[in-house]
Amino acid sequence: MKSYRSVFFANSFLLIKNIFQQQQSSYTTNKMVNAKKFIFAKRFDGLPKVTDFRLEEEVLEELKDGEVLLEAIYLSVDPYMRPYSEKYPTGITMIGSQIAKVIESKNSAYPKDALVCGYLGWRTHTIFNPNEVSGDDAIKTYILPSFGGLPPSLGLGQLGMPGNTAYFGFLDICKPKEGEVVVVSGAAGAVGNLVGQIGKIKGCKVIGIAGSDDKCTWLTSELGFDHAINYKTESVAEVLKKYAPDGVDCYFDNVGGAISSIVINQMRDFGRISVCGSISSYNTPVAEWPKVPILQPTFVFKQLKMEGFIVSRFCSKWFEAIQCMKKWTDEGKLKYRETVTNGFENMPQALIDMLQGQNTGKAIVKV
Amino acid sequence: MKSYRSVFFANSFLLIKNIFQQQQSSYTTNKMVNAKKFIFAKRFDGLPKVTDFRLEEEVLEELKDGEVLLEAIYLSVDPYMRPYSEKYPTGITMIGSQIAKVIESKNSAYPKDALVCGYLGWRTHTIFNPNEVSGDDAIKTYILPSFGGLPPSLGLGQLGMPGNTAYFGFLDICKPKEGEVVVVSGAAGAVGNLVGQIGKIKGCKVIGIAGSDDKCTWLTSELGFDHAINYKTESVAEVLKKYAPDGVDCYFDNVGGAISSIVINQMRDFGRISVCGSISSYNTPVAEWPKVPILQPTFVFKQLKMEGFIVSRFCSKWFEAIQCMKKWTDEGKLKYRETVTNGFENMPQALIDMLQGQNTGKAIVKV
Repeated sequence: MKSYRSVFFANSFLLIKNIFQQQQSSYTTNKMVNAKKFIFAKRFDGLPKVTDFRLEEEVLEELKDGEVLLEAIYLSVDPYMRPYSEKYPTGITMIGSQIAKVIESKNSAYPKDALVCGYLGWRTHTIFNPNEVSGDDAIKTYILPSFGGLPPSLGLGQLGMPGNTAYFGFLDICKPKEGEVVVVSGAAGAVGNLVGQIGKIKGCKVIGIAGSDDKCTWLTSELGFDHAINYKTESVAEVLKKYAPDGVDCYFDNVGGAISSIVINQMRDFGRISVCGSISSYNTPVAEWPKVPILQPTFVFKQLKMEGFIVSRFCSKWFEAIQCMKKWTDEGKLKYRETVTNGFENMPQALIDMLQGQNTGKAIVKV
Repeated sequence: MKSYRSVFFANSFLLIKNIFQQQQSSYTTNKMVNAKKFIFAKRFDGLPKVTDFRLEEEVLEELKDGEVLLEAIYLSVDPYMRPYSEKYPTGITMIGSQIAKVIESKNSAYPKDALVCGYLGWRTHTIFNPNEVSGDDAIKTYILPSFGGLPPSLGLGQLGMPGNTAYFGFLDICKPKEGEVVVVSGAAGAVGNLVGQIGKIKGCKVIGIAGSDDKCTWLTSELGFDHAINYKTESVAEVLKKYAPDGVDCYFDNVGGAISSIVINQMRDFGRISVCGSISSYNTPVAEWPKVPILQPTFVFKQLKMEGFIVSRFCSKWFEAIQCMKKWTDEGKLKYRETVTNGFENMPQALIDMLQGQNTGKAIVKV
């Protein structure tokens, strides 16, 4: 009886709330825009499943002064979505960024047809008020800088958050010097491939670790990596010794786990490790995280430094980095590849595929 | 036959070498000084044993110009001796520092009766040529700065290498700020107790982890630590949550292993970890190092920084640090305790005791 009554009261409350909201907006004309959105419906257990998400429709109201209506063109699926969504209750709109077009505007700073990079969630249409953005949120949603002839989808990749993750996480934390040996794990992913390319721009010897021969070929043949190791078919410890006989100076870590211990144990004195992600553990409960031999003795005797980071800490230099990455892209020094999934309704599958490493370069969804 | 012949040739070579050396010094009068020394006789297997060392006597020759004869007063036993001796062949004189007195001098920079802190090995008497010291070795053997009324044995502790290890490793790597929470493992050891005391000088909340109730009482009652945890009888994870409910800002790690993972997992965003030592693994072969869950996810999401160091990297500021530590000691802000073993012949046992945590404060041997 008790649970039944709770539901009853909850529903009554919702009913009252809806009526109240309708009254509030009764002064606006209803111009119906249907937004599709994915709800984070079920807490993930291991690898996310398509059924953990629920597609819903939402009728958007007419714009108020200061607001704009955004229509998604490309949406991003990124590794961070797996651990970050754990911090939210189920029922929220799934988190994420998109490249969207302003299709209606009541804000002169966001004119019609402008392109926006926005942390708006998995939604096709969104009402957004730029005046409500302040502080560090300015790097979450902003008018896309001019990319010249480059595709706007790069705003989700190397000219956006993943690009800045590679730029700052590698340059500010690893502080690579010309001639040094750089190892990148998750090297064919959205961030890893850029770290390796930046390493080459900086005159380093770059070794990538990836999960297929095709990815490895892409890294060495197209992106200019010096070497690539397929961790699924090769012994990372043995092959790394061959490619870096004098040890590793910089390690950019996207994966965590046993591979990272192998690389760390082959580092040179005063080596630097930038920990960007730990995708090998994202689908595993904390209690089941892989165990590795302690790293402290290696840290002492080789005087290593390791630092984890979240890219938002570099927000004050956000657009400078994008300009630099654009310049390198224009000059042909930074190449790009996108793995594109078509159709908004395929977002869950695109996320799942990316978490399993089925993408090469940046994974995006085209609406 | 083959091994016999090898021994024969080796011995012949030694014989020739000795004759050659005697010829070299034949122009000097032989004034017999007997030095006792401990030979690193047998490679350690786990915890060192008394029988891994061999006490020998050596007849020292008369001094040549530029040389001084040093007589040990106090010798140091330190955790680093366990892993560092592994890098040497057996047969060498065991490594280590001592406070010695110049008992005969042919070098005006090292006059008779001067006190010296010297990285001279486990020996009672040593012929030393200060002119042969260059570069970074200047911090290994030097005339002891004036300690005022403080005991010269502190030159092996808080006014020497362990003191500088605490000073630089904590201040330069953890960069503690007033009001922050500092955790020190191995807190009752030579370095750890100083780190905690420096933390209090800098206005931090200091929590020590040590291996006995007596040590914990010393830390809180005499040294001013805010809290101490006996890891042998208490749950570090639970008690630390109580003492540092908002998390830990700085962790000074002397032990490595499972305790370090517990502390790291309770750190606050942007926490700093200085890895000074890893005594929990020193008596264990690499293949048997304890395994712990990977730390990378914690490093990413809390944006932690961890750095290992060897104190010699701070050699350019060596004597400044000693002056500062002396000032704090004179002002009563830095207290000291020594665990003294009497008798040069007991050096092996003193090392073994220290590696088992039987010392409180600095472990030294009085000749």
